[in-house]
Order: sequence, then structure tokens, then C-alpha cells
Amino acid sequence: MTKVRALVLERQHELALRDIDLPMATGRDEVKIKIHTVGVCGSDVHYYTHGKIGPFVVNEPMVLGHEAAGTVVEVGAGVAHLKVGDRVCMEPGIPDPNSKASRLGMYNVDPAVVFWATPPVHGVLTPYVVHPANYTYKLPDNVSFAEGAMVEPFAVGMQAATKAKIVPGDTAVVLGAGPIGTMVAIAALAGGCARAIVADLAQPKLDIAALYQGVIPVNIREKNLVEEVKALTDGWGADVIFECSGSPKAWETIMDLPRPGGVIVAVGLPVNPVAFDVSTASTKELRIESVFRYAHQYERSIALLGSGRVDLKPLISDTFGFEDAIKAFDRAVEARPSDVKLQIVME
Amino acid sequence: MTKVRALVLERQHELALRDIDLPMATGRDEVKIKIHTVGVCGSDVHYYTHGKIGPFVVNEPMVLGHEAAGTVVEVGAGVAHLKVGDRVCMEPGIPDPNSKASRLGMYNVDPAVVFWATPPVHGVLTPYVVHPANYTYKLPDNVSFAEGAMVEPFAVGMQAATKAKIVPGDTAVVLGAGPIGTMVAIAALAGGCARAIVADLAQPKLDIAALYQGVIPVNIREKNLVEEVKALTDGWGADVIFECSGSPKAWETIMDLPRPGGVIVAVGLPVNPVAFDVSTASTKELRIESVFRYAHQYERSIALLGSGRVDLKPLISDTFGFEDAIKAFDRAVEARPSDVKLQIVME
Amino acid sequence: MTKVRALVLERQHELALRDIDLPMATGRDEVKIKIHTVGVCGSDVHYYTHGKIGPFVVNEPMVLGHEAAGTVVEVGAGVAHLKVGDRVCMEPGIPDPNSKASRLGMYNVDPAVVFWATPPVHGVLTPYVVHPANYTYKLPDNVSFAEGAMVEPFAVGMQAATKAKIVPGDTAVVLGAGPIGTMVAIAALAGGCARAIVADLAQPKLDIAALYQGVIPVNIREKNLVEEVKALTDGWGADVIFECSGSPKAWETIMDLPRPGGVIVAVGLPVNPVAFDVSTASTKELRIESVFRYAHQYERSIALLGSGRVDLKPLISDTFGFEDAIKAFDRAVEARPSDVKLQIVME
Amino acid sequence: MTKVRALVLERQHELALRDIDLPMATGRDEVKIKIHTVGVCGSDVHYYTHGKIGPFVVNEPMVLGHEAAGTVVEVGAGVAHLKVGDRVCMEPGIPDPNSKASRLGMYNVDPAVVFWATPPVHGVLTPYVVHPANYTYKLPDNVSFAEGAMVEPFAVGMQAATKAKIVPGDTAVVLGAGPIGTMVAIAALAGGCARAIVADLAQPKLDIAALYQGVIPVNIREKNLVEEVKALTDGWGADVIFECSGSPKAWETIMDLPRPGGVIVAVGLPVNPVAFDVSTASTKELRIESVFRYAHQYERSIALLGSGRVDLKPLISDTFGFEDAIKAFDRAVEARPSDVKLQIVME
Repeated sequence: MTKVRALVLERQHELALRDIDLPMATGRDEVKIKIHTVGVCGSDVHYYTHGKIGPFVVNEPMVLGHEAAGTVVEVGAGVAHLKVGDRVCMEPGIPDPNSKASRLGMYNVDPAVVFWATPPVHGVLTPYVVHPANYTYKLPDNVSFAEGAMVEPFAVGMQAATKAKIVPGDTAVVLGAGPIGTMVAIAALAGGCARAIVADLAQPKLDIAALYQGVIPVNIREKNLVEEVKALTDGWGADVIFECSGSPKAWETIMDLPRPGGVIVAVGLPVNPVAFDVSTASTKELRIESVFRYAHQYERSIALLGSGRVDLKPLISDTFGFEDAIKAFDRAVEARPSDVKLQIVME
Repeated sequence: MTKVRALVLERQHELALRDIDLPMATGRDEVKIKIHTVGVCGSDVHYYTHGKIGPFVVNEPMVLGHEAAGTVVEVGAGVAHLKVGDRVCMEPGIPDPNSKASRLGMYNVDPAVVFWATPPVHGVLTPYVVHPANYTYKLPDNVSFAEGAMVEPFAVGMQAATKAKIVPGDTAVVLGAGPIGTMVAIAALAGGCARAIVADLAQPKLDIAALYQGVIPVNIREKNLVEEVKALTDGWGADVIFECSGSPKAWETIMDLPRPGGVIVAVGLPVNPVAFDVSTASTKELRIESVFRYAHQYERSIALLGSGRVDLKPLISDTFGFEDAIKAFDRAVEARPSDVKLQIVME
Repeated sequence: MTKVRALVLERQHELALRDIDLPMATGRDEVKIKIHTVGVCGSDVHYYTHGKIGPFVVNEPMVLGHEAAGTVVEVGAGVAHLKVGDRVCMEPGIPDPNSKASRLGMYNVDPAVVFWATPPVHGVLTPYVVHPANYTYKLPDNVSFAEGAMVEPFAVGMQAATKAKIVPGDTAVVLGAGPIGTMVAIAALAGGCARAIVADLAQPKLDIAALYQGVIPVNIREKNLVEEVKALTDGWGADVIFECSGSPKAWETIMDLPRPGGVIVAVGLPVNPVAFDVSTASTKELRIESVFRYAHQYERSIALLGSGRVDLKPLISDTFGFEDAIKAFDRAVEARPSDVKLQIVME
Repeated sequence: MTKVRALVLERQHELALRDIDLPMATGRDEVKIKIHTVGVCGSDVHYYTHGKIGPFVVNEPMVLGHEAAGTVVEVGAGVAHLKVGDRVCMEPGIPDPNSKASRLGMYNVDPAVVFWATPPVHGVLTPYVVHPANYTYKLPDNVSFAEGAMVEPFAVGMQAATKAKIVPGDTAVVLGAGPIGTMVAIAALAGGCARAIVADLAQPKLDIAALYQGVIPVNIREKNLVEEVKALTDGWGADVIFECSGSPKAWETIMDLPRPGGVIVAVGLPVNPVAFDVSTASTKELRIESVFRYAHQYERSIALLGSGRVDLKPLISDTFGFEDAIKAFDRAVEARPSDVKLQIVME
């Protein structure tokens, strides 16, 4: 154990930038990374404001942060694909490679996953972290640390886009233009959609989404989404609906959006069960997919960033120094509609 | 128009075996069929007892019956694959081949489908019918008329089995052992499942399902289904869940049955929206499929009957002559748990 | 029959711009279109230089041209989705909607397809054409006639991208940077690939492909493609290989390009059978897909053009007036490596 | 190392039943199994007669045998799902769980797989073996050791059936009725096919395949396979072709067998590249799949045996005691057409 400085969530509502003991020995198949940039995620903020997410409760001080990029400073003896000095980003969930889910290629649904900044596991708002090399990914020279720290939330969008089984030229509808909805829209377009009709109540969020070619913003304070989708699809409906609002209300009319044979991907997680209109879904033979974090999406996401087909820089709303990390969280609590992603730079 | 004898639903609760005028001219791409056997379907009975199903209301006298087999007696000039004397069964829904859904291969979700015994379209409990040759299928010599008239309900099971995307050796759970649940279980096994755990409250229904090798009946009056599924799958869960009960209660615990990455196929149609636990579904990344009748399932169903891989004869509970057709319907109204399929023979 | 001016291939090596009798009556489900732009396709040129393609032989004078866009000037009584004045492009193949292949949604493999400028069917290098409304597609205002006439070759690329079942972020290799290879690369990127490694011997072709973000050109006169692909994929291999060269030589080493579990899409058509290394393919459990023209790709292609996600204008190398149509063909025969698409404007 | 008695392939053509030193310590995640039954596989025989298979050469004495079932006699501390006394069968290939292929769920294409009786790895024709618990599978009470030792070759058939993506009611063609072809036919039927048209020159092999309901044997000495398939499918073609003969000749006409949109699964491995008719494949938009051993097929195979949906006992042609193991191999070398599987019982 080594004493290191970290952003610690002491308990609900209380953050501290202080020293804490963390393990820092690099194992055979691990690398040690000097953290450069960490994004502030909605879940970090939620632990801060609510002290828990579902069954995960902050009972002890926990280091926050799980969207991270940095530089390799130490490499275990068994690691072949990384070397000291490599700029990398890290997948925050570490599964058991011998679990049944992992062996089937679905390590994200392995119940034994250990995930950064999910109680009681510490996150990475601290200068160094030791991590399995298999879940540490080299960044191309043209992908910055800031973008590297965006790979985690983008991977959520990529998982949704992958599960949708997009056919090239599909028309998507994205319900909700928050950070996740925006990531999903970008991933859906990069993943083959011709258009992403993005719906929200907040115009500033729509304005940011509309920076991306192929996004058709619909302010549902002003327009009827079902009518808009019909107009844009000659009455046929959209191929893929991504539900990213997490609102139970969205499920009341969602069946009117897809075309016959279309798909709904449930990304937003309503707290309680929602009303699911089986009969209407059946009339169209709809498929519903659900997603849980992501699996095998980091290399794909980095490839899209590296080739220039995806640019996430417009989503970085503001950057804070490590010493201002608590300010970054307090700004995130404000939930300004024009803020997509706040980041903390360690040095 | 020709005057023919038919089983007519005059209005809710009132059946008559009487003459009625029906069109009997055989068009270029049509065949005329002498009806031999017609099965009594739950939907026929529902129109009899309730006068409507959802938006479909019996406002005028309507001939019942849509599960039919018979013999070709006349062939249109444009028909190549059928000849007089062919023993056939007929698909009761006729889509518009030029609709968008049909062109995409999903003719069952074409909103313009014309379907026998769905108001205001007449069914086939009458000695002859004219039908498009493209939706009329030759029966092999070793498939009887009685089995031919079972192809329609079996096709419903086949559609569910197809949508599930069964992987060979999957374990299925079928909720509900009524006629549709039983058909689904048989189709799921024929379609690649190693086992179908069939759950119901009624032991006589389970006893019939259990005639089929691979069915594991679970009487949920006596046993906890979730525990049974866990015990049978080493705690992992089943690969495919077919919800065939149509009960909203089934949806309350259904998410506990599938394995991570599993699928739920919604076959039963609850009248109202059901409670859908998105969060639990997401934790397992479940897929939900819905089905609407069937498309492209007749030839596949007949192939399974013809090869002997599927035997539907044990499901034919009783047979009535045409003159006793009303008795057949009154027996169906009784809903004896040991009755799966009642059939009416025209001659 | 109406006498109209047309570019007629009289026989191998002999083109004439002259009057010819063509049917011009607009049927119930048809539209009449004033042709605006027609692209010169490699198959048109091949009939001109060779007089045949495989079993299709030019035995009688035939109008050339099948990549066309224009304006609706007459609408049949049964047509709902088009009106006079609509700017449109047309799918050159007309299938039988009642064929088995069409009903299954694969109308492109219907052997009864009637295809423009495929002997003995006339093409559309003539001022007007009558066409089924179902295969005539409205262009958005921001898609020009020139781009509309590019939808046909782009649809070939879209079919290949669709068959590949691209997963978002895949790395593709495209063998051959001719017009089809370039279309495939663009479609693969639009369809979800992060990168398309395009290989050819001709630098001018590679330079055009490299205009598209995500294309990595590899001149195989200078570089070893297998080594390049390994270097770009950390030794793992590419996810999707599109064989667009039609060269038997390409098949000799193609198995070294994909990753384990990858796919090869055969787009180019070698005249004779090629050497297929089953053992190496098996070691990686490769999948091979083949494509034939396209089905259901026009609306998707137009959506990608309309949303700005795909820009085909850089591929239009030169434009000729109708009176210079023969010049256009003679230029095409030159096969300049910097020429991708030549077009003829009717007015 | 422990001295144990084993069937040792000393070099090409020379077998010995003698003592050899093998490791017998049971690790934390391993189990020790008392071997009961071992099947004789074509690859074992091939090492005996040829001394090598492709790049795998017998340079040192090697214990043969990889199709095995037995009883757990020792359990490592980390093993939860097995206990002493469990009857089990074992997967002979042990992948690296941290390889890229394994993490993607395709451990069979992990180049680092260590496989029993593949030089220089010893097989299990010896009384005991230590094996990873994760690749050791419990047999249900109603599945005998003899059947348990058949799971390995059946898994090959299951992998082929899985890759085919069978749709319930499909018609398959199996080229070659040797042990693998027969396993594939059985797996294809269990996996959803209505019919498997099995083609071979040897009537005794066809007679054994024909014991299975749904198999249609075609002796290609007497009948034209293409004509038979056309007759059985109304001229449309079969949905799935499994090439199990490994004969280059099979590839010359194989494209005539599938329907438009059908699939060919390459199971047999020709020594040299075969002639692949890309043009004909494209006309039908065929898909070609290849298979390499199997992944995730043991539990599925055991489930099919346990439920009674698959019965492999008719394929066990003869059984030898361990002391007669060399006789078993010499009998296998005879390649009697009526022999499918020979087994050796250890006690």
C-alpha cells in the first residue's frame, strides 16, 4: 500500500482531496499508469449527491473517477503489447476471465466484474493506478489524453450501436440528448446510420448534438416526435430507436416510432418497471435490446477516433486541474444543459 | 357469387349452419380448393363468445374458420406448382405483394393483410374456397388432412422459434401450456432446443406437452419455476423464454428466468401494457422479440411434418362432422384442459 | 411504341445515336420519367467492347445506360408516393414480386429480374423511360441529378457493406480501387467501419480513394499488404475483407488478411473458379459472403447522400452532353486510372 | 511425474501399450479423472498411419486418444461445479483464457490452444488424466460413459450446425457419410433441420445415417445428387450444404445444390485449395462458413443427449478393452464402411 493523493468521496455530499492508501504493486500481467485526464461521469456525481446507485452504497470512503487516460510507467513481466511511455486509456471494469460469461465473450455481464468507483472499489482520481494490461489500450498519436478519457462514455454508445445491429443507411431515433444520448447518436451514425433524429426538451443539448452531421434535432416541447419521424420516413417509421432518457413516459409512446420489424435499444435505466405495450410491439414484430456497459468496445472506439471518423472534442465542455477537482464536481451537480463532459487534468 | 353452406357467426353468441353467398370464381393466379378439415382456433371461439378481438368487431355475419386443408379442384391459368387433385393446406392471410413490408420479406406485418375469419373477411368453414396459389401448399402423401389443418397453429410456434434465433442445444422455458404454448414448445424442440421446460397451472395440459421428448413439465401450483430453471441449468438460466400465457403476472418475474445474454419471445398478447423491468433486463443484456402470426413458415412446417421430425397428431383431441360444427364450437367454449385442438371434417 | 432518340449499341464495337422505337405508355403502377443524367458503367462499356457479359450476348441493337436520374412527368393511377415534378432515381432491375426470391425479400436473386441494358432489355440513354413506381425513388432537394445517377453503383457498395455485417469500428480491407472498390470502401466506412485499407497498383486510383476520411491507401507495388494489415491491427488481422479486384491472384493470399472469425466479401467476379484455401479459412473460422447487385439499397443510399454522411461528387470525373455520348464511351474505353465515373447529361 | 500405462504412438506405424511418465498433480482449478472410455478418432489413426497431420508431426512418443469420459477422483481447491464421483467427459483442447480469441468467445481459434494427442501434447489412452475443471463436463445419469466419449466428435457436428445458422425447418445436404458427416447430419437435424439429404458412395455408411429420422440417403453411385435435391425442394435448392467429404471434386458442383441465399459449411478439409466458383456463388448470394473444432458445444451436446433428442449409441460399432487397444487401432485402419466409431474401455 502506498499513500497517494486522491479525490475521495467520504460519504454522500462530502468530497475531499486528501491522501489515501492504495495498492501500487504492478503484477505480472499488469501495467502501472500515470493518470493524465479523468472525465466526470454522471455515476460519479450520483454517488456524490445520493450516496448510492441501486444496490451499490457508499459505506466507506471511495476514490471517484473511472473515465481515464494516462501514460504507462511500469510494465509487468508478462505484458507484450504495451511498453513504458505508451499513452493509454483504461477500461474501468475488470472481469474474471474464467467466468462463464467471460468465456462466452460477454464479460460485461459477468456478475464478478470489479468496476472502478463502484463501491467498494476505488476509482482513479489519483496520480497513479495499476491495471491489467489486457484492459489497457494504446492511444494513437493523434488521439489526445482528453479524447482518450472520452473513450469510456463513447464505449457505452458503441455498445448500444452494436446491439442494434444497424444496417448501413438506417434511420435512428435517439430519445434524450444528455451525455449518453449524444454519445449513442454519434456511435449510431459512426456505426452505419444515415440519420439520427435526436429528441429532447432542452435546446442547448440539441444544439450540441446538431453539431454532428446526420443529427436531426427535434425539440419535443415544440414538435410532436411521432409526426416528425413519420414525416422523415414517409410514414414507415425509424429503423432503430435508442431510448436514452430513462424516463418511464418515453415508453408510453415509443412503439409508435419504429417501423415494422424495427428495434428499440433500452439504454436509459428507469428506476421502476415501465409500461411495455406487448400488443403494439407484436403488430410490428419489434425487437427490444438492452445494454449493460460494454464489452470489446475500446479498440473499436479508439479506431474510430484515430481515423477521424468520430470527433468527441466538441463534447468536452470544460477542464479543471486536479486541485480543482471538487469544483469540477460541484459544476457537474449544476447540470447545465450546455455541459456535456467535464474533465480533470492531473498535472 | 355462389350460394354455399357455411358456419356463420351471425353475431356474438349466435352461430348458424346456413347458406350464404360467397365468391367462387378462380382467378389466374388462384386455385379452388374443396375443404376437407378445419381446426377450431381460439380466435374463432373468441369472436363467438366476445364478438370482437381488439379493433376487429363482428358487425355483419361472418363465416368462421381459418385452419384448413383440402384438395385442389380448379387451377388458374397462371399457376404452375399445383394441379387438380393435389392435397393442400392454405395460409389464411393474404398480403399485398407490392407493399413495403412484403417486399422486405415480412408480409405478416403488412397492414393490408386480408385474413380469413377476421372481420369483415369470411373464413372457410364451407365446402369450397378460392385462394391465391402462392399461399396454397402441397401436402406430402404421408401428411393427413388433419395434420394439414394443424399447420396454421404450428406455424405460429415456428415463427416464435425462428425469431428466438435458437442455437442448437439451447434450453427453452415455455410459459403456458395452452394450444399455442404447446405448439411453441414443439417448434422450439424441432427448431434446435435440447429441452423445453413447460410451465402451467393445469396438469392435464402439462401431461399432453410431456408426451413430447425434451419437454420438462413444471406445475407452477406445486413448484417454483425460477428454482426449477436454476436447478436444471446449474444456476445459469435458460437460453430462451417463450411467454405464451399472455398473463401480465408472467412479466413480473420473467427476467429471473433467462441466462445473461438470453432472449424472451413475447407470444401471448396481454390486453394491457405489462410491467417491463428494464434495469434487470439490462443487467443480463436480454433481448426481447415479439411475433405476429407468421411469414414463410408453411413450407418449413410441412417439411417437419413430412419428415416425421414433428408429430402433431397427439394434439387432435376430437373431430366433428360439418353438421356438428356448432357442437364443436360449444365444446371449445368449455375450454377443457385436456382439449388441445378440435377439428371439423367437411365430408 | 414511340420513336425516340437513343444511344444504341448496334453490335460489338458499334455505337449509334439514333432513333429507335420504345414503349412509352405509363401503366397503373408506373411513372414516366424525363431522364436527366446517366452514368457510364463498366458493364455498358464491356458490352460495347466485348459484345457480351457471360451468358448475356448482344444479338440485336440495344439501348445502353442503367445508372439514371430524372424527373417524373407522368404518374399512373395506382401510384401514391410520387407526383409529377419529383426528382428521382431509378433501380434498373425489375423483379417479379410474386417470385419466391422476391417474397423472401431477396428480389435481386430472382432469376426473372429484368435489368436495363442487359440483353435483350433496353437501357435508358434516351430522353424518357417508363418505370414501376416501386423501383423509382424520390431524391431530396439537396441531392443533385448527378448524385442521383450515382446511387446505382453506390448501391453495389452498400450491398457488400450490408452482407459483411459490419460491427461498428471494424477495420476493412478493400482489394482493388476501381469504381466498385471505391464505392465499397465508401459504403463500408459509412456502414460502420473505422478504417478501410484500400489496396491497388494504380496510384491515381488510390489518391481518389484517399480523399475519403478513414481510407488508408496501400500501393501494392511498393508495400506488402499482409504486412501493412498486420502492422495496422497489431498482428490480429482485419475484420472484413472486400475482394473487389476480381483477380484470381487476390484469392491466393486473401486468407492471410482477415482476423480469426473475420469475413471475406467476394464482390469482384473472376471469370473462372479461383483457388480457395479451405484449410486456412477453417483455421480462422472465416465466413465468405457473395453479393449480386443489390436489394433494398436505394432508399438507404439516398438517405446517406441526403444527410451528408456520404459525398459521391468527388467521384464524378467528367460530364458529357447527350450528343457526345459516344465520346463518353470512347473515353471510358481508355480506362484512365484517374477516371472513376463519367456521366452523360441528356439536356 | 508418475509412471502410468498408456497407448503410445512411438513413431509412424508403431504403437505400444507401455509405461510412460506423465504429470499427475491436480492444480487449484483442475480435476483428476479416472478414464473410463476413449473413442478412436480419425486423427489418432492418421497419426498412426502417416505420422503427421499438416504441420503437426510426431517426433517423439505420444500418448493417443482425445475422445474421453470418466469419473472425477480428485478436485482442486478452486473448483466449485464438480465433486469426486461425478461422471464426466472432457474437452481435449485447452485454450489460454486471456488470449484475444478466447476473450471474444472464440477459444477454438486461439492459436495457443493445447490439444490432446496433437504433437507434442499427450492424449488420454491411459488410466488417469488431470484436466482444467472449466473444460470438464458432468454427464447426466442417463448418459453412459460410451455416449460421453462420443460428445467430442458430436461437438464437431454441433459447431457446423451452429455456424450454419439453421432456420427451423431447413433442408440440409450433407456431402459424405463418414463419421463426421454422420455427426453433422445428426446435429443438423437436432439443430432444427427438417431433413438432411446425406450423399455418399458407400451404401453401408448411408444405411447407418438412414437410421436417423429425417435423413434421406442418396447413393451418388446410383443417383445424381443435384437432381435429387431439386426434386426434393421443388427446384429451389437446399438451405444448407455441409461439405464433409473433404474431396476437391465436391467443390466442382457444390454451387448447384443450395437455394438462392443459401449457405455452404466447409467441414471437410481438402489438402490443397479447391476450385471456388465465385460467379455462381454470387448469382445466388451464397454464404460460405468454415469451422475449426468447436467452442461452447459440450454443454449443448450433453443437453441433447440427456434429453433423449439425440441418440448416438447406434454409431458405436465396436468396443475393445484397454489391453486390446492396438487391435482397435488396426481395426480402425481397415476403415470398414460399416464402422462409425470404435471405442476402448479402460477397465
